[in-house]
Amino acid sequence: MSDATDSLASLKQAMQAFVDERQWRPFHDPKNLSMAIATEAAELMEHFRWLTNAESRAIAGSEPDMQAVRDELADIMCFVLSFANSLNIDISSAIRSKLVKNAEKYPADKFQSRFR
Amino acid sequence: MSDATDSLASLKQAMQAFVDERQWRPFHDPKNLSMAIATEAAELMEHFRWLTNAESRAIAGSEPDMQAVRDELADIMCFVLSFANSLNIDISSAIRSKLVKNAEKYPADKFQSRFR
Amino acid sequence: MSDATDSLASLKQAMQAFVDERQWRPFHDPKNLSMAIATEAAELMEHFRWLTNAESRAIAGSEPDMQAVRDELADIMCFVLSFANSLNIDISSAIRSKLVKNAEKYPADKFQSRFR
Amino acid sequence: MSDATDSLASLKQAMQAFVDERQWRPFHDPKNLSMAIATEAAELMEHFRWLTNAESRAIAGSEPDMQAVRDELADIMCFVLSFANSLNIDISSAIRSKLVKNAEKYPADKFQSRFR
Repeated sequence: MSDATDSLASLKQAMQAFVDERQWRPFHDPKNLSMAIATEAAELMEHFRWLTNAESRAIAGSEPDMQAVRDELADIMCFVLSFANSLNIDISSAIRSKLVKNAEKYPADKFQSRFR
Repeated sequence: MSDATDSLASLKQAMQAFVDERQWRPFHDPKNLSMAIATEAAELMEHFRWLTNAESRAIAGSEPDMQAVRDELADIMCFVLSFANSLNIDISSAIRSKLVKNAEKYPADKFQSRFR
Repeated sequence: MSDATDSLASLKQAMQAFVDERQWRPFHDPKNLSMAIATEAAELMEHFRWLTNAESRAIAGSEPDMQAVRDELADIMCFVLSFANSLNIDISSAIRSKLVKNAEKYPADKFQSRFR
Repeated sequence: MSDATDSLASLKQAMQAFVDERQWRPFHDPKNLSMAIATEAAELMEHFRWLTNAESRAIAGSEPDMQAVRDELADIMCFVLSFANSLNIDISSAIRSKLVKNAEKYPADKFQSRFR
């Protein structure tokens, strides 16, 4: 399975199965899951907090760092998937629709190399 | 496009195009993107911080709340996609592999309705 | 030393000494410290993410939980103190002035038991 | 009032009065307050997410940026104070005791200009 062949629908099902096998659904409400996404996002950030921007790019050359970072990103995603399950959100539609809004908010010709 | 038909590869490409049209790649390094994921995760959490767990589930019945929450989840995802682009991470593989690790760490028979 | 007798000025000095004894000042810039505050805030939150609101109050009766939580709150504060040092911020003045602004933003008579 | 003359005990009382005037104590439990600290920490971080480390130091020269950052730091502190109130934590003791632990964990002679 890879980003080219896997689907978010299938990943959401896999996460739901993981949750249901442990009867964790009562804990996985939107409030708790928003906390879980945020705590895992902080763990990803922890890898980078004392690094310069250049050093953060350079971890691409370290397989141990990359493995740790892939795992942290996966932790964030697991809770994103469970959050989407808890509120029946289509993640792909949400992203596609937000990219349209963002393109209007940040017109490319006015935001060349600028973010405000 | 929906979670059943869209692919993470296609979503990653769409996000990369958005970044490149604005020449934002110099800002989108792993350090900055980890901060961006965490700040958007906090914005999602902000919707729920004064709600009870039950109230957080009940937003499913409010379309304005749902629209806001879908947008926040999309913001998190946009930066997750850009983070994956910046370090060439296959998100699907990372999730599938983490679910296997988590299944070993939390055997279903020992973690029925328990999370520690 | 206690909250009644200690001063934020003295705590800021103690934190600055800790940083300087390790020559960590080059790492302790506002960007990195904002990441550090946020990661420690997430570690505090991690203690509560699967608990109900009532259960979170009940940890007051568990000394091991309280010790862990005091340590996490202290970690947040250490980086708040270092952040204030890095930008020469008077924390007390900032809080007193923000409480005045918040009192105007949330008039007590309009926000009885309501937060929006 | 300044960091030299104000006390954390007095600041905690001021925050408690603010909460009580609005009858917000039912919302201000440890779980919700940990979320609130984390969301405010993310708002502080948002000021810095696209800046380099050097640029983050340079905001010291911009009064509008400094005012915004002081307000965000104060928001974090207000919820730290309320969290301490909710669990009857002496913040000063917690910090002093954590600095002793951290000095043992990071001996100055082994961590010169290094953080791991």
